[in-house]
Amino acid sequence: MGLVVQKYGGSSVADAEGIKRVAKRIVEAKQNGHQVVVVVSAMGDTTDELIDLAEKVSPMPAGREFDMLLTAGERISMALLAMAIKNLGHEAQSFTGSQAGVITDSVHNKARIIDVTPGRIRTALDEGNIAIVAGFQGVSQDKKDITTLGRGGSDTTAVALAAALDAEVCEIYTDVDGVFTADPRVVKKAKKIDWISFEDMLELAASGSKVLLHRCVEYARRYNIPIHVRSSFSGLRGTWVSSEPIEQGDQKVEQAIISGVAHDTSEAKVTVVGVPDKPGEAAAIFRAISDAEINIDMIVQNVSAASTGLTDISFTLPKTEGRKAIDALERNKGGIGFESLRYDDQIGKISLVGAGMKTNPGVTASFFEALSDAGVNIELISTSEIRISVVTRADDVSEAVRAVHSAFGLDSDSDEAVVYGGTGR
Amino acid sequence: MGLVVQKYGGSSVADAEGIKRVAKRIVEAKQNGHQVVVVVSAMGDTTDELIDLAEKVSPMPAGREFDMLLTAGERISMALLAMAIKNLGHEAQSFTGSQAGVITDSVHNKARIIDVTPGRIRTALDEGNIAIVAGFQGVSQDKKDITTLGRGGSDTTAVALAAALDAEVCEIYTDVDGVFTADPRVVKKAKKIDWISFEDMLELAASGSKVLLHRCVEYARRYNIPIHVRSSFSGLRGTWVSSEPIEQGDQKVEQAIISGVAHDTSEAKVTVVGVPDKPGEAAAIFRAISDAEINIDMIVQNVSAASTGLTDISFTLPKTEGRKAIDALERNKGGIGFESLRYDDQIGKISLVGAGMKTNPGVTASFFEALSDAGVNIELISTSEIRISVVTRADDVSEAVRAVHSAFGLDSDSDEAVVYGGTGR
Repeated sequence: MGLVVQKYGGSSVADAEGIKRVAKRIVEAKQNGHQVVVVVSAMGDTTDELIDLAEKVSPMPAGREFDMLLTAGERISMALLAMAIKNLGHEAQSFTGSQAGVITDSVHNKARIIDVTPGRIRTALDEGNIAIVAGFQGVSQDKKDITTLGRGGSDTTAVALAAALDAEVCEIYTDVDGVFTADPRVVKKAKKIDWISFEDMLELAASGSKVLLHRCVEYARRYNIPIHVRSSFSGLRGTWVSSEPIEQGDQKVEQAIISGVAHDTSEAKVTVVGVPDKPGEAAAIFRAISDAEINIDMIVQNVSAASTGLTDISFTLPKTEGRKAIDALERNKGGIGFESLRYDDQIGKISLVGAGMKTNPGVTASFFEALSDAGVNIELISTSEIRISVVTRADDVSEAVRAVHSAFGLDSDSDEAVVYGGTGR
Repeated sequence: MGLVVQKYGGSSVADAEGIKRVAKRIVEAKQNGHQVVVVVSAMGDTTDELIDLAEKVSPMPAGREFDMLLTAGERISMALLAMAIKNLGHEAQSFTGSQAGVITDSVHNKARIIDVTPGRIRTALDEGNIAIVAGFQGVSQDKKDITTLGRGGSDTTAVALAAALDAEVCEIYTDVDGVFTADPRVVKKAKKIDWISFEDMLELAASGSKVLLHRCVEYARRYNIPIHVRSSFSGLRGTWVSSEPIEQGDQKVEQAIISGVAHDTSEAKVTVVGVPDKPGEAAAIFRAISDAEINIDMIVQNVSAASTGLTDISFTLPKTEGRKAIDALERNKGGIGFESLRYDDQIGKISLVGAGMKTNPGVTASFFEALSDAGVNIELISTSEIRISVVTRADDVSEAVRAVHSAFGLDSDSDEAVVYGGTGR
């Protein structure tokens, strides 16, 4: 029996009852012979309440102080959780990110972990304690200031600690039963995935699946830490995310051809109209965007109209960055040379993810057929080796996800396999 | 213009508006040319809310985790205060007790400061920042665990930092205008004291005055740090507590004969009845009490009745310790040898404090005359060099305080001096 890292999100520890329920589950793992390290988020809406307070005091709170404020949330939940465990007769000690050795860079509000030195955690474990660690936070290497890792950072804390402590598994407890083949709020027949590879999970996370953040999965893949995503409310087995299929009973879970359908309605589309079709134009556009520190997602350049020598370039980006991107392009209009800008935030993205695409020709064709049968118009297309994404009208997204989910035999009451017929991808 | 330490209590920073008001006051001190270090308590009822949460999770929360929990409160207020100051265009940085170098022993929930190493605070000041420090908390020297200093600990943090930084003054901002000659809720004519010596303030604090805690005044006296107690709501001059009378205008504030009247209804009286009047009996009683870690206040032994050779011993202690004391004595009844125990929690204590007692005979007589005129019966008496205390019925306390306050000419609309006639104290 080795070391297990468990992570509990805010909804699992929303109140005193939740904390006591979680404490029991942790004690079970300890009684099963594991060394247990627990990473915990702030209770329920604590973080949002603290953000509200900050906004009342200052419209633009400074990063360093904002991080100091937000980390109070985990301090509360971790101390209460340690108390609840001790109340069950087991030894527990809580540690801040700094005490747990979570060393980060100095980028406040979205720091990156650069090292984990869990000496105090190791000592606590060796002395028979359950170690409770504040998620989402660390301490900067140079200035010794408190930092936070950004939303979802507690998952990354858990995986990073699991890697540093050479854990058997990192269990991410949440309020859903695992990773599903689609968002169950949109697709009622979505199925829980028993196992998914790091690669497919990364693509799902990048395509709008909210269960695990991209950064956390990336970290787990780099250090090859299996993740088990499961519910803190039920005792059910959840979804394993790992490099190799896990055993279930006495047989291996098979690699699915298609892992799932993700969607995302948080993006907007910018179209740069009338760009001269000559070398360096795209570079100028995306240099302006990158200088404004905006991350973009898809990029599509239309075929140039021979008559005018002009082309259009479209890209998608988070809606929250839309204003900034338009401003950055307008400022550089002279240098870049384009006619006009179009901004559209009524779009949605549907992505089909699965390593099986590589070896199963026809997936792309089936995907487009399903969309076409559902009457969904496609505006942009982008692909990776194991993913196809399309941009559609936002209003069409739910219908499109359901159509694709069903067409690929992912619906839970359907056992039919999809036959991939066509040639090429 | 030197360095000023300001401390703001929870009622001064109870909400976003309070934090903004306090921020303005801090900035004024900075604009007046001071280096400013601010110690801040948790907002309003935050600490009580956290205690409630802890009780829901565990009936007997462990000290280490309880401290970790409570310190979240100051983390929130200090970060918000730093943001509010920066929003006014001034540089501010917040520091936890640990970051500020507040080193304590390892007694959780009531740790004592054993050293202050404010290197980071000094650097922040030298760089032109206002430094905001979490009150009430420190880090233990041996285990590097987070500790708290007990209720009122923020005042001690402020004085300790003032001493370590060699501050000109430690300003304690609160929701009253200063230290009064009596509790203004009981005595409407109570006057604000302009200046009071450390010694008199120590006696007042020990006798029930809530404005400053005994430990904080003791610390200030040891390092000779003047304290200025004042309101964060008005801009008025408050009460100076220092070794030498301060100047006011161009004349020195004179040492008052009597500083004030304090009262305390938080104590109970235990009477050990029928104790053999022989050496070692009192020692046995108070060893039993001290082994149970109970602090007691007054002790009185009655004259032994010659006929029986038995005597009664009474002492007072916090009501909260009453149960524990009775249990400890009952457990040791055989060894000590007494007839019975009486427990009375309907008592009150009135204390008259003033260094002038030493040189003004008759203070004691006037004190008892005032009580007698008010028809107040005295149950116990205890004195120090500059204090007389009596225990009465709890119901008589308010009337007794008013009578004594008036008799010593402390009422605000009275200018008459009290003539001390009698002989002896």
